[in-house]
Amino acid sequence: MPQTLRVTVWNEGRHEKKNPDIARLYPRGMHGAIAEHLSKQPGIKAAGALLDDPDQGLPDKVLAETDVLIWWGHMAHGDVKDELVAKVQRRVWEGMGLIVLHSGHFSKIFQRLLGTNCFLKWREIGEKERLWVVDHAHPIAEGLGDYFELEHEEMYGEPFDVPQPDELVFISWFAGGEVFRSGCCWHRGRGKVFYFRPGHETYPTYHDANVLKVIVNACRWAAGPRGEPLVQGHMKTPIEKL
Amino acid sequence: MPQTLRVTVWNEGRHEKKNPDIARLYPRGMHGAIAEHLSKQPGIKAAGALLDDPDQGLPDKVLAETDVLIWWGHMAHGDVKDELVAKVQRRVWEGMGLIVLHSGHFSKIFQRLLGTNCFLKWREIGEKERLWVVDHAHPIAEGLGDYFELEHEEMYGEPFDVPQPDELVFISWFAGGEVFRSGCCWHRGRGKVFYFRPGHETYPTYHDANVLKVIVNACRWAAGPRGEPLVQGHMKTPIEKL
Amino acid sequence: MPQTLRVTVWNEGRHEKKNPDIARLYPRGMHGAIAEHLSKQPGIKAAGALLDDPDQGLPDKVLAETDVLIWWGHMAHGDVKDELVAKVQRRVWEGMGLIVLHSGHFSKIFQRLLGTNCFLKWREIGEKERLWVVDHAHPIAEGLGDYFELEHEEMYGEPFDVPQPDELVFISWFAGGEVFRSGCCWHRGRGKVFYFRPGHETYPTYHDANVLKVIVNACRWAAGPRGEPLVQGHMKTPIEKL
Amino acid sequence: MPQTLRVTVWNEGRHEKKNPDIARLYPRGMHGAIAEHLSKQPGIKAAGALLDDPDQGLPDKVLAETDVLIWWGHMAHGDVKDELVAKVQRRVWEGMGLIVLHSGHFSKIFQRLLGTNCFLKWREIGEKERLWVVDHAHPIAEGLGDYFELEHEEMYGEPFDVPQPDELVFISWFAGGEVFRSGCCWHRGRGKVFYFRPGHETYPTYHDANVLKVIVNACRWAAGPRGEPLVQGHMKTPIEKL
Repeated sequence: MPQTLRVTVWNEGRHEKKNPDIARLYPRGMHGAIAEHLSKQPGIKAAGALLDDPDQGLPDKVLAETDVLIWWGHMAHGDVKDELVAKVQRRVWEGMGLIVLHSGHFSKIFQRLLGTNCFLKWREIGEKERLWVVDHAHPIAEGLGDYFELEHEEMYGEPFDVPQPDELVFISWFAGGEVFRSGCCWHRGRGKVFYFRPGHETYPTYHDANVLKVIVNACRWAAGPRGEPLVQGHMKTPIEKL
Repeated sequence: MPQTLRVTVWNEGRHEKKNPDIARLYPRGMHGAIAEHLSKQPGIKAAGALLDDPDQGLPDKVLAETDVLIWWGHMAHGDVKDELVAKVQRRVWEGMGLIVLHSGHFSKIFQRLLGTNCFLKWREIGEKERLWVVDHAHPIAEGLGDYFELEHEEMYGEPFDVPQPDELVFISWFAGGEVFRSGCCWHRGRGKVFYFRPGHETYPTYHDANVLKVIVNACRWAAGPRGEPLVQGHMKTPIEKL
Repeated sequence: MPQTLRVTVWNEGRHEKKNPDIARLYPRGMHGAIAEHLSKQPGIKAAGALLDDPDQGLPDKVLAETDVLIWWGHMAHGDVKDELVAKVQRRVWEGMGLIVLHSGHFSKIFQRLLGTNCFLKWREIGEKERLWVVDHAHPIAEGLGDYFELEHEEMYGEPFDVPQPDELVFISWFAGGEVFRSGCCWHRGRGKVFYFRPGHETYPTYHDANVLKVIVNACRWAAGPRGEPLVQGHMKTPIEKL
Repeated sequence: MPQTLRVTVWNEGRHEKKNPDIARLYPRGMHGAIAEHLSKQPGIKAAGALLDDPDQGLPDKVLAETDVLIWWGHMAHGDVKDELVAKVQRRVWEGMGLIVLHSGHFSKIFQRLLGTNCFLKWREIGEKERLWVVDHAHPIAEGLGDYFELEHEEMYGEPFDVPQPDELVFISWFAGGEVFRSGCCWHRGRGKVFYFRPGHETYPTYHDANVLKVIVNACRWAAGPRGEPLVQGHMKTPIEKL
């Protein structure tokens, strides 16, 4: 594991600009709230990055020096350049961790890495969400009880069209009648991917202590050894001479 | 797959004897309700078996000729002889399918096959259960929509202390605030195991069309080729002479 | 399951045209050898389709009426139109089974469905491959012993850059010193995907009885219910009124 | 994660007593060789324990204060008391990591936790084993290349009758023609289990740098939060009042 874990919190950042209520909830953006909390943890150094920054927030040097990338997007998935998506995918294959939050389920990078359309059901009435831990041996669940709650969240419901997670950590219960696989892990190449459901922009979700704990745990879990991607190779002679 | 699928529906059968309300719901026992429905399906022949029958319902010949065993137990798990449990386990390893229903989660055979204590939370107030399909590619979900409902059921809640299922087919939502992995698949040796949550004895669950459809699908999924168990073996010479 | 299983065996078909030795091994093409064998099985109807056919062999009507698509490609992956790849992916999400053979590991459709680059190591000296069954409960392994052999095959070796299979059925041993996960299952949406390693064009692999048995088993496993893809949906009111 | 990782290396310890050649390879026992290496790692404190010690090496206090237990057994599996096996199992459910080495595949504790008979094939001619990494994102593979080799080992071959691993890290190739899933992970309750194949008593395997690296990585991976086991519980009132 790298000595200092370098986390980049990428945020579309458009909602905060357009809606004063959201700006009040997150005066330094959702990325700011998350990055500030992460930077307080021992061994973690986090910085924000925005879609409207130069190079859409992820110049090659930043991407190359990121151990874990956190991704929040919603209204502007289509604006992210295909070229950048390919670079991020390649970095995951090389070993960069990727944590996709909430509406990032419909980002190009998530769809590309999973191979499905990532559809789901949703409803926005601010109902209660209760997140149940279903794998108590998993490091992402460390320090949590049987469940934790968010008083008001957007609902996401099954069917969630993703490949069966390699490890399923959380299942959400919603007051309105749905369930959702809200904490899902996959490996892709040398990289690890974690999807974490909560975080609608109109609620103070990224100030919640349990949500932040999960994100910290997920960063530590997702961080891998720095390395080159796995390679295709023609071997002319056998390893084993017979 | 065998030409005719031979299913044995094993039932503890004690509740039906002791409680007239349960006997009214299931005049031929829960096993009877299930076996009658199964026997109406093309290519399936089903029979009941009871704990209080000779050989606890499963003489060697019956067990040897069973392709899929369905198991319902609750108040008398401790009465099932260890010797019988070992025989059933061996038959699963040989390729017999096993479908464990509801409170069978706490049977000796289920615990032995899974290696965990199979604990869970429960509450008996007859609340609503909604079962969501989370793997729409799975044959056990064939013919179902996004979800189906049971108006009144006992609640089972997470944490459900089982190994992560190889395939997770259903997640239940309960009105009282819980979720549960209610349709879980595992392979053990040559055999397949399916756990299906619904079926508290005081409700007419095994008359429900969707519940019965799942049980039929599960029987077809769980049926394997008849065979010998995998064997331990000392090989004195290499397969490959080098 | 559909009454008659309609299988389309898609083949790039270029090697057979260019190399007389390959044409001699497969006078009606590799697709022909496979489709002929499949069509002899009860309940299966198979037809070939070629890259150089109109609509690259898969006009909408054919794709819509295909329950399981088999895919063999090698030298012309780049010629397959992105538009067709998107249609095939959508059909998998709807429930069509997909069986990817050998060098199809590097096809656009396989990469898109898996989200990885699908790299591997290879060596072409015609060495021996031994395929070990590692999931004896799996229907794709039905009727096989502990292993089967191919006297001469191209070697494919790990690291095979694919997501961990949902179910791993075969692992290959190669005389030259490598291993390979050579029978891998994944679910994508309502569809099932099976990758099966053997089948280099210069060997009579698709005349081998065990290889053909695996392909038949895989077709039956991959066939799903016909249906629409899972949909994204905005729900304005709760299912459950609180 | 605990500040200092407390590892107990349990060893049957009989081979070292009976066979002078083995005693020469491992003058302080196989447990000694492993524990000494572990104790040199930052943040790890390891000690040995023997079957012939009081309380079979694992008095309650030791077990309670063990974060990760390593298990090597072979000729005396039957001598381990069922009561001790039940205690170890309970500690795994509580969160203790368990690493089972080589012939420990046939120990009572491994069989109990997995629910299968754990059979395999074997051959003892000292042939070459090559361990291929098949999950390059896994922390247990950190610091390894595509593969590593052991010049002389006992062969273990498939079918290995264990549940499909939650995560498969290594596959072994043997010169004599077999393959084996030689690095396998499972979760049980709050605990993590890793099976690692190499380590026949007549070879210097536990002096090999790569083998020791894997064991160190596995200890760090298996260490979980200290905690109570998951509990069964009757809930009289709903969490959610409807």
